[in-house]
Amino acid sequence: MCLHAGFFYVKIKNCVCTKQYRKRVTVMIKAAVLGYGTVGSGIVSVIENNADVIAAHGVDMHVKYILDLRDFPGDPFEKLVVHDFDQILNDDEVKIVCEAMGGTEPAFTFSKKAMEAGKSVCTSNKELVAEKGAELMEIAKKNNVNYLFEASVGGGIPILRTLNDALTAERIESIQGILNGTTNYILTKMEKEGADFDAVLKEAQEKGYAERNPEADIEGYDACRKIAIIVSLISHKRADWEQIHTEGITKISSVDFKYAHKLGRTIKLIAACHKTEKGYAAIVSPRMIDKENPINCAQGVFNAVLVHSDMLDDSLYYGRGAGKLPTASAVVGDAVELARHLGDHFSAGWSAEEVALDPVEDSEFEYFVRCKGAFSDNEAALKAAFGSVKPVDASEAGEFGFTTSLMKEGSFMNAYNALDGKLNYIRL
Amino acid sequence: MCLHAGFFYVKIKNCVCTKQYRKRVTVMIKAAVLGYGTVGSGIVSVIENNADVIAAHGVDMHVKYILDLRDFPGDPFEKLVVHDFDQILNDDEVKIVCEAMGGTEPAFTFSKKAMEAGKSVCTSNKELVAEKGAELMEIAKKNNVNYLFEASVGGGIPILRTLNDALTAERIESIQGILNGTTNYILTKMEKEGADFDAVLKEAQEKGYAERNPEADIEGYDACRKIAIIVSLISHKRADWEQIHTEGITKISSVDFKYAHKLGRTIKLIAACHKTEKGYAAIVSPRMIDKENPINCAQGVFNAVLVHSDMLDDSLYYGRGAGKLPTASAVVGDAVELARHLGDHFSAGWSAEEVALDPVEDSEFEYFVRCKGAFSDNEAALKAAFGSVKPVDASEAGEFGFTTSLMKEGSFMNAYNALDGKLNYIRL
Repeated sequence: MCLHAGFFYVKIKNCVCTKQYRKRVTVMIKAAVLGYGTVGSGIVSVIENNADVIAAHGVDMHVKYILDLRDFPGDPFEKLVVHDFDQILNDDEVKIVCEAMGGTEPAFTFSKKAMEAGKSVCTSNKELVAEKGAELMEIAKKNNVNYLFEASVGGGIPILRTLNDALTAERIESIQGILNGTTNYILTKMEKEGADFDAVLKEAQEKGYAERNPEADIEGYDACRKIAIIVSLISHKRADWEQIHTEGITKISSVDFKYAHKLGRTIKLIAACHKTEKGYAAIVSPRMIDKENPINCAQGVFNAVLVHSDMLDDSLYYGRGAGKLPTASAVVGDAVELARHLGDHFSAGWSAEEVALDPVEDSEFEYFVRCKGAFSDNEAALKAAFGSVKPVDASEAGEFGFTTSLMKEGSFMNAYNALDGKLNYIRL
Repeated sequence: MCLHAGFFYVKIKNCVCTKQYRKRVTVMIKAAVLGYGTVGSGIVSVIENNADVIAAHGVDMHVKYILDLRDFPGDPFEKLVVHDFDQILNDDEVKIVCEAMGGTEPAFTFSKKAMEAGKSVCTSNKELVAEKGAELMEIAKKNNVNYLFEASVGGGIPILRTLNDALTAERIESIQGILNGTTNYILTKMEKEGADFDAVLKEAQEKGYAERNPEADIEGYDACRKIAIIVSLISHKRADWEQIHTEGITKISSVDFKYAHKLGRTIKLIAACHKTEKGYAAIVSPRMIDKENPINCAQGVFNAVLVHSDMLDDSLYYGRGAGKLPTASAVVGDAVELARHLGDHFSAGWSAEEVALDPVEDSEFEYFVRCKGAFSDNEAALKAAFGSVKPVDASEAGEFGFTTSLMKEGSFMNAYNALDGKLNYIRL
């Protein structure tokens, strides 16, 4: 054991203490990176370019292998590339595996085998965590290693670590997140330029901010997986992302933003969950949020997560939710934490038991609705259908808007579906 | 050793695992709370009211003693109150001491003795940490215990933990913080209501948001201690808060806000530091910041810290920077972390060696200046004195404003001090 002045305690084999921390030998770690795509190459960059920073936190880490099917001639790390996972698996010097392959297979099998061989694993793979997280955490526990996945939610924002390690005295009551950079980029552009969805999506695709097959982002599925991971983490039980009501942003128009501005609001794709009497409620949908809401600080590709808890009240965590280096940085931050806990299973997680998610019909919201015609001609019928309503005048020809009071989703959808001339609705 | 399904690994003596986590015996901790004022009573509330939440994070914690000179007849915890610190010191069952006394003495002596007796200490006492932090960290190290102080900066915002444990792969380049709730409350009120400083301060005092002796807040000393702690943490060396150039908000007027709005900006008291070639630069001063700056999400008593680092780019942490329960929650979050690491010295810190702080005269800023007269009459002289300048017209009779390009603080102050009719200056 070596207690370096002013630095972290680390278990090390050979300690040569000097006053220059860069010369100190601390915990020596060889890592393997699975997948040499965008995130994987970012991980290698962060580990090797910031080795001195990581060493100052007590961990001397280097990459020993990069697993990829391809070769990378001319790449500065080409000699580290291997094609056979068993080479990593059978090398006892490799204690940490950074998985950046994406998808469930072979990422699942490789992660499982790595942990069974006594290696800890960290990942940016939200599909895998949302799908097979409980199983992988169980494997980690059985093998006295750890499985960390900070980068799977909010990219570089340390939200999972905050929930696990900092807000440990807090009863988490609700979490609202802007968890998808692509949709936030599109909505921010639409707001600032008065442009419509299709045009902005096309531009975002050209600039590389949206994929050519953008459904996972614009239909809300990506945000849904992330809020499912958050619900799992705070409930300690598996949240099935397929049970979470999810709406994307494809129906949002520049006209909707005009009404939002009239209300002092803007429109964001919000992934939200809160504790209920029976369990949790979760939903992903566009929301008209107050311009003063601190979550609105997330403009463009930035993400933000607003946590409401009983003692601390509101706290917010903001940063780049995607991108090569921010995502890689979160994976490497996990790798450092894994290195600090070699031989100790400490990582939080959830069981395979499913958390009870309330049906969306039972949730309550206020709603904004756009409709053809004039408010004055429809006021009585609207009140009969929606209860208390307030007109919103954005001076749009041939249509009007109104907001409702708090009402149950089920009642609202019944009334909305029966509404003549309906154009769009957005939850407040 | 007990590995609870889905929960943290904790070292425990007697483990009775059941499926109901609230019944689980995990790590049993008795804590003592020093000082039963606002924060101290908050700490007791958080530990006892959220004992089930804390247990779900693997720590069964209860308060055994509360040290205070006073008695608290009728208080639900009156039986825990003791007047003699030695009673705590000599009780080996007490492993964690939460210090909420404020000031340097007797807080320093008690913290020192507690750690020498093998107890870990957490605190909200920023004066003590800024003044004697290095010494206390050294004592923690020598005694294989830990000294944590999350609540000393940003109240309930987990900024120190984020810097220590999450952003471990990041080269921290600069940090800007709104670190004082009182001044942010005053500036927010001034902005929203067009009111002047004295009137808002008086109201804040009446409401309890400002102290009767408000100098530590309004002159920036509180924010200064906090940024000194941040500089110490990221440089691993002691930053002397008395060496940090500090200006408060007493000279800010409603007229300044009019000019700020003309520039699309607002005014915040910003505690800032950045890495320089030779060491670090740090300053506390009012700043005219862009309205779109995410740090501007901190309105009223809220605090926010914006971190710029090389891989992650910008990330921001927002929450209540003061107040009984948020501050207490951060102390208890530290206590949980201490409980998880009994017997392991892990806490980060800094050495007694002083970090090199650049003289403020060498720092570069753009400046906003208000001056009597008309811009057109003074343009030539202003250009001669300040270099490139741009007028700002807020339609104020008998005066004008202008902004400079980036210039050295030393050059600016020379020019400003020689300026006839000068009214105020604010750094951008």
